[in-house]
Amino acid sequence: MRMSELSGSTGAPVATLKYYLREGLLRPGVRTSPNQAQYDVEHVRRVRLIRALLGPGGLDVATAREVIGAIDSDLPLPHVFAAAQRAASVRVDEREVDAAALERADELLADLAIHPGNPGRAAAAAVIRAFDEVGQRDADDWYRRYVEAALIVAEADLDMVERRATRDEKAETVVVGTALGDALFAAIRRAAQEHVSTTRYEPERAETIRRMRSSR
Amino acid sequence: MRMSELSGSTGAPVATLKYYLREGLLRPGVRTSPNQAQYDVEHVRRVRLIRALLGPGGLDVATAREVIGAIDSDLPLPHVFAAAQRAASVRVDEREVDAAALERADELLADLAIHPGNPGRAAAAAVIRAFDEVGQRDADDWYRRYVEAALIVAEADLDMVERRATRDEKAETVVVGTALGDALFAAIRRAAQEHVSTTRYEPERAETIRRMRSSR
Repeated sequence: MRMSELSGSTGAPVATLKYYLREGLLRPGVRTSPNQAQYDVEHVRRVRLIRALLGPGGLDVATAREVIGAIDSDLPLPHVFAAAQRAASVRVDEREVDAAALERADELLADLAIHPGNPGRAAAAAVIRAFDEVGQRDADDWYRRYVEAALIVAEADLDMVERRATRDEKAETVVVGTALGDALFAAIRRAAQEHVSTTRYEPERAETIRRMRSSR
Repeated sequence: MRMSELSGSTGAPVATLKYYLREGLLRPGVRTSPNQAQYDVEHVRRVRLIRALLGPGGLDVATAREVIGAIDSDLPLPHVFAAAQRAASVRVDEREVDAAALERADELLADLAIHPGNPGRAAAAAVIRAFDEVGQRDADDWYRRYVEAALIVAEADLDMVERRATRDEKAETVVVGTALGDALFAAIRRAAQEHVSTTRYEPERAETIRRMRSSR
């Protein structure tokens, strides 16, 4: 298909497609004349992935390029996972976090089999330190329940990857699941907070809302 | 205390403090001469909060100004919660999400007592749509487990707010918990993914890592 058709199939404007090509996010089509190239279903698939990562996934162009590179590499799956984790994480340099906060993070994550370079370790330490600084020093129970919830999510993440048949499908699921999973969880957390707050403090209103929704 | 002392107490450079003042994030001190103002412990507390929100919380200046405004307002706590939720969410406009995706989000969140304007609803719909678009159409079980995990986190969030005594402390905990909670969960999710992956596919290595950590 021509670029105009690729645009029609994906809903991405031609200018956007040219931008993806320029930025190295999308592989060039097969040139059929000096001004024309042919694209195929793999391009359609890739454009949709790029849009998902840059849109709801919230990645910047450089990060999207990095994780797409990991999909297209021949690296084994654990390396793709590591690349997706690094790329889509809040980047915190271990050297920027003080030793006491890292120790607290290690205590919190003590039951998990992770290596010291896991990007979540320094990022968790940075949050713990910020929490201490604003005077929220009694948050151990809060942290512990986040770990409990994160394990449920991580099991779900891995189960979804396992359902994919080929290495490439698995790699794509790893990347898209890691990037979009953060956004999905943040979204659902907003809904869950309102639900818990309403159920606790305005139980009758919560009941009314539920009844209205289920009767639709 | 003078600005140089406020800087010493918080670790924030004087230029940074002046920037916070200019941006309306920090209230002016009490002017004692044309070139000097006095700051107090409330300023120390506020500078730490601003740094936590802009740093690990990942908020931009405009968003931080909005949530700090909510703390300082006389609005009742549910309104502070709503402001923190709106401000710290991936902002997705409901009109940008198609009706079918919103319906899917409503099905997913059917058991939760939320109103249609909850910012998580449109944001979840945007992720579901992006997931569909990249061909991940069998993700219902994945979504459902995210809801289960988000409810654990939301209960923990509300419990932490309840432990605070005054309205202002509660409001600050709401804001800082909402903004930093996303970062904390994303961090711990990275660790949990590695843990689950190693435990499933390299159980002996997982055991070795755990033994090494617990023997330290």
